[in-house]
Amino acid sequence: MTNQHSSDQHRSPVTVIGLGPMGVALAESLLNHGHAVTIWNRTAQKGDDLITKGAHRAATVAEAVSRSPVTIVCLKDYATMHAILNSVVDAMTGRALVNLNSGTPTEAHAAARWTAEHDVDYLDGAIMVPPPLIGEADSVFLYSGSQDVFDRHRATLASLGDPRHLGSDPGLAVLHNAALLDLMYATMNGFLHATALVGSAGVPAVDFGELAVKWFMPTVVNESLIEQASELDQGDYPGDFGTMEMNANALEHITRTSVEQGVHSDQPRLMQQIAERAIAEGYSGRNYLAVFEIFKKPTHTG
Amino acid sequence: MTNQHSSDQHRSPVTVIGLGPMGVALAESLLNHGHAVTIWNRTAQKGDDLITKGAHRAATVAEAVSRSPVTIVCLKDYATMHAILNSVVDAMTGRALVNLNSGTPTEAHAAARWTAEHDVDYLDGAIMVPPPLIGEADSVFLYSGSQDVFDRHRATLASLGDPRHLGSDPGLAVLHNAALLDLMYATMNGFLHATALVGSAGVPAVDFGELAVKWFMPTVVNESLIEQASELDQGDYPGDFGTMEMNANALEHITRTSVEQGVHSDQPRLMQQIAERAIAEGYSGRNYLAVFEIFKKPTHTG
Ligand SMILES: NC(=O)c1ccc[n+]([C@@H]2O[C@H](COP(=O)([O-])OP(=O)(O)OC[C@H]3O[C@@H](n4cnc5c(N)ncnc54)[C@H](OP(=O)(O)O)[C@@H]3O)[C@@H](O)[C@H]2O)c1
Ligand SMILES: NC(=O)c1ccc[n+]([C@@H]2O[C@H](COP(=O)([O-])OP(=O)(O)OC[C@H]3O[C@@H](n4cnc5c(N)ncnc54)[C@H](OP(=O)(O)O)[C@@H]3O)[C@@H](O)[C@H]2O)c1
Repeated sequence: MTNQHSSDQHRSPVTVIGLGPMGVALAESLLNHGHAVTIWNRTAQKGDDLITKGAHRAATVAEAVSRSPVTIVCLKDYATMHAILNSVVDAMTGRALVNLNSGTPTEAHAAARWTAEHDVDYLDGAIMVPPPLIGEADSVFLYSGSQDVFDRHRATLASLGDPRHLGSDPGLAVLHNAALLDLMYATMNGFLHATALVGSAGVPAVDFGELAVKWFMPTVVNESLIEQASELDQGDYPGDFGTMEMNANALEHITRTSVEQGVHSDQPRLMQQIAERAIAEGYSGRNYLAVFEIFKKPTHTG
Repeated sequence: MTNQHSSDQHRSPVTVIGLGPMGVALAESLLNHGHAVTIWNRTAQKGDDLITKGAHRAATVAEAVSRSPVTIVCLKDYATMHAILNSVVDAMTGRALVNLNSGTPTEAHAAARWTAEHDVDYLDGAIMVPPPLIGEADSVFLYSGSQDVFDRHRATLASLGDPRHLGSDPGLAVLHNAALLDLMYATMNGFLHATALVGSAGVPAVDFGELAVKWFMPTVVNESLIEQASELDQGDYPGDFGTMEMNANALEHITRTSVEQGVHSDQPRLMQQIAERAIAEGYSGRNYLAVFEIFKKPTHTG
């Protein structure tokens, strides 16, 4: 703290728009790191605590964005951001807008085009931790958009966590956010469904957790997935160590066991159907990673 | 090897029935560990290599089972095992049968009842590694059934890998096998689908693999899942750190991003539907782990 305060004069003023749980955490972390912080929120009183900690409450959005060289928005979604900022965008010309709302790549691209038309520097970001972890040095924030804009504001962004720049395509941050959460949910659902499966025979979750996570997952998940990633990039699926048919059989088996044990069976059944679709589409005899070819295309139901 | 051979006289003779890729690997490992090995397979010539390595080929199934105190079967499925062993089961009275076919708990229970009627000691097992890893000291084999039978044959089973006894319910080994594979496939599918998602913007799998596995997965997967397991056992899902609604929104978001990027969307959509079902069934405001309550019940489609 002493160190941080001794360099207050180097800290950029920052405006934070949007004071849900996440926006409040962002503003608080900026204050803790010695930034002059201006806040604005539709429901003003959500900023009361921040005011007592030294933040300045702007009376209008226009005042808010004109008080700092960089404005961070953390609103419900992109539509809300456009509704709030559309009328004041010209006041942001020559300044930077850092958008931390959740959204899709299409929404991020549209926001990047809109800001470019008004000569506003733009960074799109995604927060990979919950509010209580904001401000920790290892709390990852993903950013995409101009490398130059990122570099100029890196010190400010570092007051929120560990800022990582993914590339100049502004959609990359929200896309990576969706992909990493997709992976997290699939893994979590896999664990919960597997736990329900053994639970059908009275096995406690803590026992299965020890076996699954301490013994099985490290072997299954970690480095081997990265080693196989280059095969994905090459579309190379040699069947030497096992074929799609063997895997479809195993998945059929897991589905049947789920039905037999009276637990939910949709998740293994969907995986079985995806493997069978891979066989039908010509990946017979190839290894399991070839389901990647199915995932790369839109879903056709029926 | 020298150590192993010096104790040949302590190695139990073993019969192996079923010489697919896995049965061959099992018999070979037993030979390497100094056991006298008798083999039988419908298609006899699949054992030719084993004969040159010192195995004895039995002319009939009856001869095969009567040459050793323990018979290991590794056939396509339980039905095949019954077809082959039904007529010789009385020759196995007082001996042990170790079944390593894949199957379901119901099939394992039926096999345990059948052997008990004929006073055959029975262990049901599941092999957690592919054939090339058979015989390695850390290759896990799961077993269930009588602890006493397991203890008596533990030394023999250790010639195949690392034998782990899960409990006296004979269905536990195949049930754990299904659950662990379920977890593995869900995680693998999560990784492949997430990689397809970022790949839609030209991100190579190797880059995403580094980010996802080296940075993201260790935080997401490892110890935190075990810590939460006791909440699963208690059915306790406090919503302090996030609600089912927040998670359903995130999953809706991942599904929409998948559609928008033109990649497969069934997997995140199914997870979204499961979260929405949890809300509909009264887990509104509870944390995400409450989808466990949905997984514990049979699927009701529609
Ligand atoms: N919470 C997390 O763990 C987390 C993690 C990563 C990313 N995010 C993302 O961060 C963003 C903010 O999340 P959050 O949890 O802080 O809260 P949130 O409920 O997603 O958003 C609340 C903010 O949006 C404003 N808002 C909503 N509708 C509005 C409207 N029609 N007009 C004006 N303002 C409106 C709210 O203003 P009022 O206060 O006036 O209602 C408040 O400032 C979201 O995009 C979220 O997905 C959150
Ligand atoms: N391979 C693996 O990575 C792996 C891993 C874990 C568990 N397992 C399990 O281990 C078991 C054996 O697998 P595997 O890969 O060695 O080969 P498999 O193809 O599953 O089974 C082949 C064995 O079953 C016999 N068989 C099939 N139909 C028969 C019939 N109607 N009458 C008599 N015998 C019949 C075959 O005899 P013939 O030679 O005469 O055809 C051969 O001995 C399976 O239950 C499998 O799920 C395998």
